[in-house]
Amino acid sequence: MAATAEHTARERERDAMRRAIALAARGIGSTSPNPVVGCVVLDASGRVAGEGWHRRAGGPHAEVHALAAAGEAARGGTALVTLEPCDHTGRTGPCTRALIDAGVARVVYAVADPTPDARGGAATLAAAGVDVEGGLLADEAAEVNEAWLTSVRLGRPHVRWKYAATLDGRIAAADGTSRWITSGEARADVHRLRAGADAVLVGSGTARTDDPHLAVRGVPGAVQPLRVVADTEAAAVKPGARVLDGAAPTLVAVAADLPGPATAHLEGYAEVLRVPRAARGRGLDVTALLAALYERGVRSVLLEGGPTLAGAFAAARAVDRVTAYLAPVLLGAGPAALGDAGITTIADALRLEVTGTERLGPDLRVDAVPAASRPAHPAPQTQES
Amino acid sequence: MAATAEHTARERERDAMRRAIALAARGIGSTSPNPVVGCVVLDASGRVAGEGWHRRAGGPHAEVHALAAAGEAARGGTALVTLEPCDHTGRTGPCTRALIDAGVARVVYAVADPTPDARGGAATLAAAGVDVEGGLLADEAAEVNEAWLTSVRLGRPHVRWKYAATLDGRIAAADGTSRWITSGEARADVHRLRAGADAVLVGSGTARTDDPHLAVRGVPGAVQPLRVVADTEAAAVKPGARVLDGAAPTLVAVAADLPGPATAHLEGYAEVLRVPRAARGRGLDVTALLAALYERGVRSVLLEGGPTLAGAFAAARAVDRVTAYLAPVLLGAGPAALGDAGITTIADALRLEVTGTERLGPDLRVDAVPAASRPAHPAPQTQES
Ligand SMILES: NC(=O)c1ccc[n+]([C@@H]2O[C@H](COP(=O)([O-])OP(=O)(O)OC[C@H]3O[C@@H](n4cnc5c(N)ncnc54)[C@H](OP(=O)(O)O)[C@@H]3O)[C@@H](O)[C@H]2O)c1
Ligand SMILES: NC(=O)c1ccc[n+]([C@@H]2O[C@H](COP(=O)([O-])OP(=O)(O)OC[C@H]3O[C@@H](n4cnc5c(N)ncnc54)[C@H](OP(=O)(O)O)[C@@H]3O)[C@@H](O)[C@H]2O)c1
Repeated sequence: MAATAEHTARERERDAMRRAIALAARGIGSTSPNPVVGCVVLDASGRVAGEGWHRRAGGPHAEVHALAAAGEAARGGTALVTLEPCDHTGRTGPCTRALIDAGVARVVYAVADPTPDARGGAATLAAAGVDVEGGLLADEAAEVNEAWLTSVRLGRPHVRWKYAATLDGRIAAADGTSRWITSGEARADVHRLRAGADAVLVGSGTARTDDPHLAVRGVPGAVQPLRVVADTEAAAVKPGARVLDGAAPTLVAVAADLPGPATAHLEGYAEVLRVPRAARGRGLDVTALLAALYERGVRSVLLEGGPTLAGAFAAARAVDRVTAYLAPVLLGAGPAALGDAGITTIADALRLEVTGTERLGPDLRVDAVPAASRPAHPAPQTQES
Repeated sequence: MAATAEHTARERERDAMRRAIALAARGIGSTSPNPVVGCVVLDASGRVAGEGWHRRAGGPHAEVHALAAAGEAARGGTALVTLEPCDHTGRTGPCTRALIDAGVARVVYAVADPTPDARGGAATLAAAGVDVEGGLLADEAAEVNEAWLTSVRLGRPHVRWKYAATLDGRIAAADGTSRWITSGEARADVHRLRAGADAVLVGSGTARTDDPHLAVRGVPGAVQPLRVVADTEAAAVKPGARVLDGAAPTLVAVAADLPGPATAHLEGYAEVLRVPRAARGRGLDVTALLAALYERGVRSVLLEGGPTLAGAFAAARAVDRVTAYLAPVLLGAGPAALGDAGITTIADALRLEVTGTERLGPDLRVDAVPAASRPAHPAPQTQES
């Protein structure tokens, strides 16, 4: 019987952590530069007493919301948190203090806090006599925080490259026509990706050809991302461009050496960010652009192309996730999804791992992340074709 | 209770038909120009009494195998057949006669026979007092006979275009290197496709670059397909080419107007087929090539590329199924999977429907067939990007 009771308690903690992860996910797109965090407080008998999640930077942390909801029921209970509780006083007080003051007996967190000034929460709690455990459902919890964890690790925003192509890899027909290669379902999904990103980025070629709007539509409660155009010469985003309509903030990244008057037409409509030019080739320095966005609090970028800019990001190894929308369509001609990435031979190919596939109406969504290590396949012994 | 007994009898028939379809599938790749057919005979009490499938053209039909296995137990029983029993005397006697002689009381078939000289079986059986029903699990049964049914409908072989590409649609890197874009699992799957096809076809460009072998390896019991190279000038398949090694029959299709000596080096190694040149552009006439293969009994062709030949097939609307092996790899340069198919604008794109997706090791297999009707998506009302 004791074993069963223990088992049941463990199951309850797992269920509560799963719930905390789902709560954390609600914050995706609105908490940067903070992580998303979810928290569930169980009372001493193991019943859910309070829930919370971090909603926006500057607002209360997940633990504070959950403890407030639990009230006195938190005493002697257990807090399940997706990220190690913070130990520092930022815009809000340390969560370790809040948990100790509430009399929580046990804290279970999923992922350890990797940031220098917030970590140490587990040790502080343990020193105060709280029973602390880390690592429960860590992979699932890390997944909802993929962008933030990547940005902490790399010191630049997480970059997801999204593209929509035909099954034979074309983003447009030979004459440039491309509208509705993918379906309404796929396009709606892109709006969800935008809602989850801090910034949406396109190159000047796309700005010139498509005059895209880049704001989120059709996602209730979405926080609008920062719209960014890499427009080196300040020549593509013209007065009247849809991206200047005020539906979301807009930033136009231009070359640092442009004379002031070159950006006069953007004044009052968009922020102008001056970035060094790429050392080789055309355009802006990708690393410097990402660093400048990070500086502004951007932790996740949705790179929406086009192929030229995406090629530059791939060349800089600044693509952390690929989301491909593949339409069951064949063209046999037209521009390819990815432009020159400096890869000339198969051994240098950018190898990925598929993390998921999904049918979206008639289309296919494929998600992939860079493979941990090349080569993916052992060297062949015999010729096989 | 009666309703339940009836329900059970029906369930038994469905189960038996499912089994018959699985048996039919065993014949894929070895029965052309005949269809694949499976048969299960239930005795009067509904128990399985005999099973059979059509193994090769000229051999006994599925019904004959199953009736032989059932013996006297067939009397008063039910035969489940994936295709309407034939009513004509070909290389074997009519199956309708065999079923009547065996005293079968009821025949349930899935798909009606569409061929002029074999159809009419259902009527003959009914006239002899047999209880006949058609259409049970017709879709599933039609699927195993996809190639044969297509060839009957179109009067040419069914064509499956198979290709292996990166996620960005490249079949090789810029320098031409391409080996092992896809994994061993995907390559093994290609051998299964070859085993299921009557012929495997490549263009002279692929023959020249890759010197492919095109035979089946690693599929126990496989019947080797006919290896076909479209080599207009008889210039790509040279003495010593791997395709001439005798592991499987080989046919080299050349231009009808080539002088005799041009193919002398192939004598004794491969059959030479003379085909008219394409009316426009380079190469052979696709329709004439397919007609000549049909003439030889080929009902299914696995088109293995390259992009130029595949483009010509797509332009001729002679692709009935696409099987894409997509490797999670990015190149950003290199030849595209599909070459010029005469499509210049998005409205003329070849629209497909995805019929299935599968993970094969690290890779993705996507199957699709031409969409019944264009356009797949209603015209947009508003701009959405
Ligand atoms: N299907 C899809 O998913 C999708 C998505 C987006 C676009 N598209 C299509 O793609 C086409 C436009 O593609 P594109 O390749 O011409 O344009 P692009 O990639 O959007 O923009 C390329 C331009 O960005 C500027 N740029 C700034 N920094 C750069 C850097 N570090 N590296 C490279 N370029 C940099 C360069 O011009 P300056 O230096 O002169 O500013 C460059 O020419 C359009 O037809 C559009 O419809 C399709
Ligand atoms: N990844 C894959 O799935 C895959 C599969 C196959 C090949 N490949 C790669 O593709 C490359 C070769 O491709 P490719 O496009 O150069 O060669 P290809 O498509 O194999 O052959 C094209 C040639 O076939 C001949 N041909 C005969 N009838 C034709 C017709 N009706 N239309 C068009 N061509 C016809 C033409 O040459 P003649 O008229 O002079 O005979 C034409 O140049 C190689 O690098 C190979 O590795 C990749």
